[in-house]
Amino acid sequence: MQSSAQPLRVVSFGLGPIGLAAARLAHSKRNLELVGAIDIDPDLVGHDVGEAWGDSPCGITVSNDASTLQALAPDVVIHCTSSFLPVVIGQLTAITGARCNVVSSTEELLWPTLEHADLARRLDVAASEAGVSVLGTGVNPGFVMDTLPAFCSAACAEIERVVCKRHLDAAKRRLPFQRKIGAGLSVAEFQERAEKLGHIGLRESIALLGTACGFDLDRIEQTTEPVVAQYALATEHLEIAAGDVRGIRNAGVGARGNEVLVEIELVMTVGCEESFDEARIVGDPGLHLRMEGGTHGDRATAAMLVNAIPGIVAAPAGLRTMLDVPVPHLVR
Amino acid sequence: MQSSAQPLRVVSFGLGPIGLAAARLAHSKRNLELVGAIDIDPDLVGHDVGEAWGDSPCGITVSNDASTLQALAPDVVIHCTSSFLPVVIGQLTAITGARCNVVSSTEELLWPTLEHADLARRLDVAASEAGVSVLGTGVNPGFVMDTLPAFCSAACAEIERVVCKRHLDAAKRRLPFQRKIGAGLSVAEFQERAEKLGHIGLRESIALLGTACGFDLDRIEQTTEPVVAQYALATEHLEIAAGDVRGIRNAGVGARGNEVLVEIELVMTVGCEESFDEARIVGDPGLHLRMEGGTHGDRATAAMLVNAIPGIVAAPAGLRTMLDVPVPHLVR
Repeated sequence: MQSSAQPLRVVSFGLGPIGLAAARLAHSKRNLELVGAIDIDPDLVGHDVGEAWGDSPCGITVSNDASTLQALAPDVVIHCTSSFLPVVIGQLTAITGARCNVVSSTEELLWPTLEHADLARRLDVAASEAGVSVLGTGVNPGFVMDTLPAFCSAACAEIERVVCKRHLDAAKRRLPFQRKIGAGLSVAEFQERAEKLGHIGLRESIALLGTACGFDLDRIEQTTEPVVAQYALATEHLEIAAGDVRGIRNAGVGARGNEVLVEIELVMTVGCEESFDEARIVGDPGLHLRMEGGTHGDRATAAMLVNAIPGIVAAPAGLRTMLDVPVPHLVR
Repeated sequence: MQSSAQPLRVVSFGLGPIGLAAARLAHSKRNLELVGAIDIDPDLVGHDVGEAWGDSPCGITVSNDASTLQALAPDVVIHCTSSFLPVVIGQLTAITGARCNVVSSTEELLWPTLEHADLARRLDVAASEAGVSVLGTGVNPGFVMDTLPAFCSAACAEIERVVCKRHLDAAKRRLPFQRKIGAGLSVAEFQERAEKLGHIGLRESIALLGTACGFDLDRIEQTTEPVVAQYALATEHLEIAAGDVRGIRNAGVGARGNEVLVEIELVMTVGCEESFDEARIVGDPGLHLRMEGGTHGDRATAAMLVNAIPGIVAAPAGLRTMLDVPVPHLVR
């Protein structure tokens, strides 16, 4: 993959913060060639995508017309528009219809059969018929709390239970991220909006990890609660009064009957004392994996999308998951 | 893989401590069926392999005749005989000649082209012609200092350098392992035997990791030095006087020109204060991975061999590496 004579042709579809970072990264790789950029944002359409990511022009104008894919004929589309499969299914089938492989940051696509078995089947058929493959990935979901501990399970003879934790400091993240975790809200405001706050994909992470460990889960549950500031805090973007919310705790369990087999805890706060990712595999041998200092959500997700490209281009046609593709690694 | 209707048929070839542990583990898995066991050890031949691993008989008699493979027709052979490809090439081509896939603990097979490009080509041709695939794996080499950090590289946009460390306590390991690290020797004795002591596969780990990170290494070097006991120490198996050797430090570097891009340090001692595996990826974002308490070499290697089976059975024919197969995970 490192020495392919011809760079793989890439189009970026969706130019929010992650999509733009992925497009920029793809453009920087000698084994990839960014050949197009698609978004509907009127502030971007018609402008050079290099300027959109803050550099000099790179000769690629942002288009709002997905039908240009046919003419661009990329090997792969980096798709970053929405977290939810029902929202993106039309986009994805349009992309596969143009015979392009897809790596997508759509969180529900990490384990698409969990919530949307019908849409997953439809997408699998569409991709198979077009002879291309589709993968949902990222860093969370996609890596730290699912595929990484799944890979570690291969070093175990037997596994009883897996417990994953991700604690991250939101103080230096972008404002939309701080809003997403409820920072600065009162507890009452948080409770009102709880359904729309926090992380998407936690259930999908549990499903992937549960499958990798052969747990045959029959129940996946998720809770969302506020983390309250004991003292006043401030970030570059907002102020948090003592007693207000400084972040969120998303917790999930995967169980079979009364047995809890997978536990995931995601705590994203302003004023987090220690950022880390952790997976404890209770088994023989047991494993205790730590990512000290954590894994940067946005930058690592852009990287994972780009680094997954050679694997999904080479994969058999159809809807794939991170458990189907060869161990991804850095693309130069 | 978890729900394949028919268990995969497995033969264990080589019944030393790792091979026997892998055979026993394969026998315990509902998705695998141990159907044969092969070794030349006269103490084992003709005996039930279940008794060899310390349980009641399981109905499989150890044979010293590799030609029985043809009749047994397993899907895969777990091969655990020697660390060196020139020693095992005849065994491996006999196994592929019987149209069996292979997972092997042969350390040099992790990255076979490094030292033995000709043998690797020969094995690749033999496997391809037979329509089967061959993989070298284990926990070290195979996981903690190569494929695991290689996978983590996928969460990075750019990588400058990777530094891996594995420190492990040999105090409770088997006597042959304690001998392998020189424990109990005088420093002079250690120096005399240094070439035969320590770890095999460190260079192969560097080659795999260097390839995954796209480093184009042009030089891989390795050093071996004794770790000397400051105080007298004793294990169940041997005594170590102050001033004698309590273990070994194997270090390796992978470089391109004057630039050191991969560093690996493996310290295996009696009286190790803290067992751990660690990988630091210097890059954007940087990552600092720790396996707290380390990863048990023997048990995890047996597990990795067994858990790699579904992937290598499904892989395209030929000689494969850990970078070619889907992310391995626990087999039930």
